[in-house]
Amino acid sequence: MLSFSEKLTTAIQSKNNPTVMGLDPKLEYIPASLLQKWRAEFSDDEQFIEEALVRFNSALIDAVYDIVPAVKPQAAYYEMYGLPGLKALARTITLAKSKNMLVILDGKRNDIGSTASAYAAAWLGKTPLGETERAFWDADALTVNAYLGIDGIQPFIDIAEKNGKGIFILVRTSNPSATDFQDLELTDGRKVYEVVAETLTKWSKEYLGSDGYSPIGAVVGATWPEQAIKMRQVLQHSWILVPGYGAQGGTAADCAKQFKADGTGAIVNASRSLMCAYQKQMELPPEQFAEATRREALRMRDDLIKALRERDD
Amino acid sequence: MLSFSEKLTTAIQSKNNPTVMGLDPKLEYIPASLLQKWRAEFSDDEQFIEEALVRFNSALIDAVYDIVPAVKPQAAYYEMYGLPGLKALARTITLAKSKNMLVILDGKRNDIGSTASAYAAAWLGKTPLGETERAFWDADALTVNAYLGIDGIQPFIDIAEKNGKGIFILVRTSNPSATDFQDLELTDGRKVYEVVAETLTKWSKEYLGSDGYSPIGAVVGATWPEQAIKMRQVLQHSWILVPGYGAQGGTAADCAKQFKADGTGAIVNASRSLMCAYQKQMELPPEQFAEATRREALRMRDDLIKALRERDD
Repeated sequence: MLSFSEKLTTAIQSKNNPTVMGLDPKLEYIPASLLQKWRAEFSDDEQFIEEALVRFNSALIDAVYDIVPAVKPQAAYYEMYGLPGLKALARTITLAKSKNMLVILDGKRNDIGSTASAYAAAWLGKTPLGETERAFWDADALTVNAYLGIDGIQPFIDIAEKNGKGIFILVRTSNPSATDFQDLELTDGRKVYEVVAETLTKWSKEYLGSDGYSPIGAVVGATWPEQAIKMRQVLQHSWILVPGYGAQGGTAADCAKQFKADGTGAIVNASRSLMCAYQKQMELPPEQFAEATRREALRMRDDLIKALRERDD
Repeated sequence: MLSFSEKLTTAIQSKNNPTVMGLDPKLEYIPASLLQKWRAEFSDDEQFIEEALVRFNSALIDAVYDIVPAVKPQAAYYEMYGLPGLKALARTITLAKSKNMLVILDGKRNDIGSTASAYAAAWLGKTPLGETERAFWDADALTVNAYLGIDGIQPFIDIAEKNGKGIFILVRTSNPSATDFQDLELTDGRKVYEVVAETLTKWSKEYLGSDGYSPIGAVVGATWPEQAIKMRQVLQHSWILVPGYGAQGGTAADCAKQFKADGTGAIVNASRSLMCAYQKQMELPPEQFAEATRREALRMRDDLIKALRERDD
């Protein structure tokens, strides 16, 4: 069985593109003319919601699966639409996998040990059903919040390790208030997020694959380039999931700092700038939103590749 | 509109019981004879799972709604059963509310601002649907992880405040590894969880109701009695959700430390010790699991009330 790291390396190298497309759909993101047309097809509200979200995601996946290695559905946007939203999430995961894209579920899940096991089984593993068991969601990786410490993380590691899946632990998030608690300074001079990163590296040492990576990745925002350089050194066995490119202000040069010298070790997320690319590409009619996303994905890929080529390390 | 704090006070006082029943169902928790019987009723696996979880929860709710003011479904256990599990969660919330129980959704959600808004809309607010909007899950309160700082928390506060709902922010969790990051010591001598608590109290001041409470509650485990005393003083405007009673080792006397002198300000959770009470009450046949839960709920209520009466503050 390939490790998650090996799958990620292969997927990124085969498409020469370290991008993950965030899939955070809102009905408001769908071009109005299409939404109105789709609305008229369904008398049932819930069926409309599910189908609209799936059609939007499906068009985006179809438009980029040959050039983008992974998608990152953000659980909040599906939970926001209740059961129809979660049905759309299940179908989106299946669709992306059918196109050989890796699926990183952005859920930032966290709890004490027994409940962490339930989350891990839900998203990365299998749920016992009497004599049998079933992988209900079957994502390839999950984002995790480590505030509860190792006994809340171990179940995610165990189930990821066993199933060739991965986790990404929040180290330094991309939002302005990341500083509130992550930057608190300790008696030994370190900051909280640095301790999280160092602890994560310690945990990683027990789970190293032949490529030097563990299944325990990290989230480090592109919006903190100074911290990112240090984090790349500390997180020596971790893939880094990089949010904050584009809309949040992170540049390709900032993101480039998060890769190892060999070009592996980081995957850069863009959500709204890819999903809603049509809103900025006035030369295309809104109905061709997926083509706009493809063009933006190609631009982003070239932007990242260029920044990686140009960095002076 | 009543605030969440007012609803909680009324519910607790009317039943003279500061208990919340955790609803973390697993198929394995259902007495084997019943599970087998229910299994035979359904040819469809997913329908069986949904119905089994709902029947179990429903029997527990029916058995205690006149003596227990609130339930706390733990999202992980429903996500673990995929869409059938989440259908069971939606029905469980509706059932509990139909019996006038408050519903605290234990999801420990967290994300950056725009996505935190989506989680808050999902669980505590309403989702825009073109010209209309809909409350899909409509819980009364949600547990939240604050690692991302205020811009990831503000949307939860805003939507809670607007809708008479509440949040409980993780301050000091009940698990052994709570010490890993929550206890890191800062240059000024404080610990991380103390800063989280103090910051939460600062945020609370802008949202005080006439009863002195804000919609911003806290989670402080019963397993840390020393810290709990201090936390009760710091968290002067917050309800405290207390996990860790029973199975995790917290006693009623430990829990009593988390209440204010007037007897308000805390609600104590028990999950497995209530849900699976039948496993310890050998005088009842397993089919009467709900009656066993009622007996344990009465015992727990009396245990807490006695400890509150006996504390010497």
